[in-house]
Formats: sequence, C-alpha cells, structure tokens
Amino acid sequence: MSTIFTKIIRGEIPSAKLFENDRWLAFLDVRPIARGHALLIPKQETDYIFDLEEDLLSDMLPVARPIAKAIEAAVPCQRVGLMVAGLEVPHCHLHLVPIQSVGDLNFANAAPADPQDLQELAAKIREHLAS
Amino acid sequence: MSTIFTKIIRGEIPSAKLFENDRWLAFLDVRPIARGHALLIPKQETDYIFDLEEDLLSDMLPVARPIAKAIEAAVPCQRVGLMVAGLEVPHCHLHLVPIQSVGDLNFANAAPADPQDLQELAAKIREHLAS
Repeated sequence: MSTIFTKIIRGEIPSAKLFENDRWLAFLDVRPIARGHALLIPKQETDYIFDLEEDLLSDMLPVARPIAKAIEAAVPCQRVGLMVAGLEVPHCHLHLVPIQSVGDLNFANAAPADPQDLQELAAKIREHLAS
Repeated sequence: MSTIFTKIIRGEIPSAKLFENDRWLAFLDVRPIARGHALLIPKQETDYIFDLEEDLLSDMLPVARPIAKAIEAAVPCQRVGLMVAGLEVPHCHLHLVPIQSVGDLNFANAAPADPQDLQELAAKIREHLAS
C-alpha cells in the first residue's frame, strides 16, 4: 500500500535526506522526538518489519549503523536509540533517536520541527556520513 | 563488562527463556512494559548495538523474527514493537514488546511481573516457536 513514504521516496514530497541507495532511504522525521530523530525505510512497500524479505531484514541494522554514528557526531547525545512501532504509517520504518536517557524514547515527545533547521541539520549529518 | 545479562547467559540467575543458540539468548523481561515483553541479547558482551560485529548486527533482526511471531501468537496484540535504549544495562539488548498502540512503547509502563506467570507464558511462547 502506497503511503506518504512512497511519495517521499519518489520525491513528490520533499524531505531532509540523510542517505539513499537503491533499496533504502533515510531522512529526518518532521515530528521528531528529539533533534536529529531520523527514519530509515526500505524502498520496498512492506507494512510490518517482520514481514520484510530476509535480505532486507538482515541489512537494516548494518545500513542504520553509519547513519546513527553520523547523527551521534552531529547532535549531542549519549547514543542513538531505536524504535519500531509501525501502527501509524503502514510502511515499515526504523526510528533512530538521539537520547540522553531511556525516557527520551517516547513518542509523546514528538513535536513539529522547523523546516529550515531540518535541512541544515541534515546537511551537517550528511557531512559526517561522507567523512 | 559483565552485567546481569552475563549471569543470565551463564544460568547463574534464572530466566524465562524463549530461545537460545550459541550466539543469542532471548528471555522474558522481569519488568515488562507489556505482557510478553522479551529481550534478545547477543551472548558476546558488547555495550552499544552499533558497536556489534557486522555479522551479529545483521543477524539480530532475522533472529528476532520468529521470536516476535511466536510472541504475537501467544499474546493478544496488534504487532510486536522494537526498542533499543541501552542506557541502563551495558550489554546491548533488543526489546520485543507486544503493542496495541504506539503509546505502549514507553519504558514508564514497566512494572514487575509475576515469576510464575513469566514461566508459564515463556512455555506458551516456546510452543509457538517450536511449531
């Protein structure tokens, strides 16, 4: 089922992209739990993470690793936490959230980001990905 | 650094085990966010998930998949959500949490489980893993 993520993948909706290859896309969440909160999604439309093809499922965390390390380098945090809920948009997505404490991993903290800040922060994270 | 998880791996502390092989152990959390909340840990002592060896990192979600499906079969839920925070026990662990809504993924909901119920529930989940 096509969702807002398909439109982002196709470029029909702009996003603050961090990383893209033929199978994956990572971009900053427009309603972040914390500054630097990113989403990693497979380009293939699959609702539930545990219904992903085996090779996509095994690639997900290795693909996330350099993105998480770049977020850590760009945003002050203890580390990058992970969440997958997937009850809202039916296209599986891994949340990468810079955290200072376990309480930071809480969707109740989500709030709209400033679009200009998202673009500037994405550029900064991409610099760390490239280095 | 050895933690309580090393003691669980060695059997020095009992746990409600769901799955074990030479590299991974899964068991029910004694302070679940929701009934059926499990932890999947690599036996190797690594604090931060993104410092895991590449093959462990790529195996983690495929190893989690059948455990998550067995939890879904044993516990009424919409699906199994994932969380990795890792700021408390310095041995990386993937939380597998049966959820009904995104708000269920919240460590503030953690509360001690009844040890007898944990053992009975683990047996039920193991039956689904075996089938």
